[in-house]
Amino acid sequence: MRFDVLTLFPEMVEANFQYSIMKRAVEAGIITVNTINPRDYTENKHKKVDDTPYGGGAGMVLMPQPYVDAYEAVEKLENTCTIMLTPQGEVFNTKLCDEFSKYSQIILLCGHYEGFDERIREIIKPREVSIGDFVLTGGELPALCLIDSISRRLEGTLGKIESMEDDSFSDGLLEYPQYTKPRNFRGYKVPDVLLNGNHKEINEYRMQQKIERTKQRRPDLLS
Amino acid sequence: MRFDVLTLFPEMVEANFQYSIMKRAVEAGIITVNTINPRDYTENKHKKVDDTPYGGGAGMVLMPQPYVDAYEAVEKLENTCTIMLTPQGEVFNTKLCDEFSKYSQIILLCGHYEGFDERIREIIKPREVSIGDFVLTGGELPALCLIDSISRRLEGTLGKIESMEDDSFSDGLLEYPQYTKPRNFRGYKVPDVLLNGNHKEINEYRMQQKIERTKQRRPDLLS
Repeated sequence: MRFDVLTLFPEMVEANFQYSIMKRAVEAGIITVNTINPRDYTENKHKKVDDTPYGGGAGMVLMPQPYVDAYEAVEKLENTCTIMLTPQGEVFNTKLCDEFSKYSQIILLCGHYEGFDERIREIIKPREVSIGDFVLTGGELPALCLIDSISRRLEGTLGKIESMEDDSFSDGLLEYPQYTKPRNFRGYKVPDVLLNGNHKEINEYRMQQKIERTKQRRPDLLS
Repeated sequence: MRFDVLTLFPEMVEANFQYSIMKRAVEAGIITVNTINPRDYTENKHKKVDDTPYGGGAGMVLMPQPYVDAYEAVEKLENTCTIMLTPQGEVFNTKLCDEFSKYSQIILLCGHYEGFDERIREIIKPREVSIGDFVLTGGELPALCLIDSISRRLEGTLGKIESMEDDSFSDGLLEYPQYTKPRNFRGYKVPDVLLNGNHKEINEYRMQQKIERTKQRRPDLLS
């Protein structure tokens, strides 16, 4: 799967793929991540990419010319989807993640500072996606969240030892509590049921914990 | 404000503060970001920090000893808050962001791979926070989202030109459309009302756009 990220801070995006599972996914050829800097496409003689908003108000707005030209320069594969990261978008979740993981290319449009000139939306017509009801200094972290979340669902990204079968939300519930060594840590013990080797009992205990935890913490997921 | 991030991938966290507004916030002394690697605290002779789950199942689980010991080694300031990043937590939003921005120190606990041994929760008793209903390979990106979102609310982080007064969610509504130069881009024009200098009309237009956009895209925010 190929990701093309339009960003004014390409190094910030690239740094994320130098570690751990994302690094491995790149090295294994499961994902490719390209960055495109709209600053390289500006026709402004001072290399500007943003300017003050018409009508007044604080903040700088990304100009349409560098952004749209950069977007048009990206090679488009057959099964491609363009996503703008913005707090005004659809809220990202596991369901959207599944949907996005079926494309062969995703082009991610990251803003920075104040926001996009509205005509960037009008011309490119991207899907608009938000990672939640909070505001960040740019779209880079949300883009990285999408790439991470989508990539880990692709075959081969996670080894057997990091499987996603018990993920939170995979069956609409939060995950059950996990325990590893030692059996006793400072007097806090692993529940007996997990040690008796009876898989039917273990499964029942875990399902009950999932329901209990979801009811307590996120009753909205149950309705 | 001081952030202490417990992570197995400190370089991944640190890389984020080498660019743009977050870099400036560090250089201006508005925020300090420390990283602590639980791997440096493990008593396991092979430097292991995770192991297979009791009761079976896929994935590796972070062992309590390295994590709790690393946490206890962090210097605690007077007004401190400890946050574990996990899909099982409270969902982060602008309201939580405001609340967190009042602490002088935030300690962020990032997992990686499968999850935390439950006793890490029981002993440290952190606030548990999620950035949304999706799963990532680690807590590092969510931790960076929190730091970014909180830091930009601190005095001095944003210059006047990047003010947050018109942020989405600041008044419970999505942002109005923004326009900058040129007035006409490929036939797409800036709305006349933004060019006439009548601030009462501009404000009315923008408020109407905010309501319209929120109604269309996120009716849940209005109720």
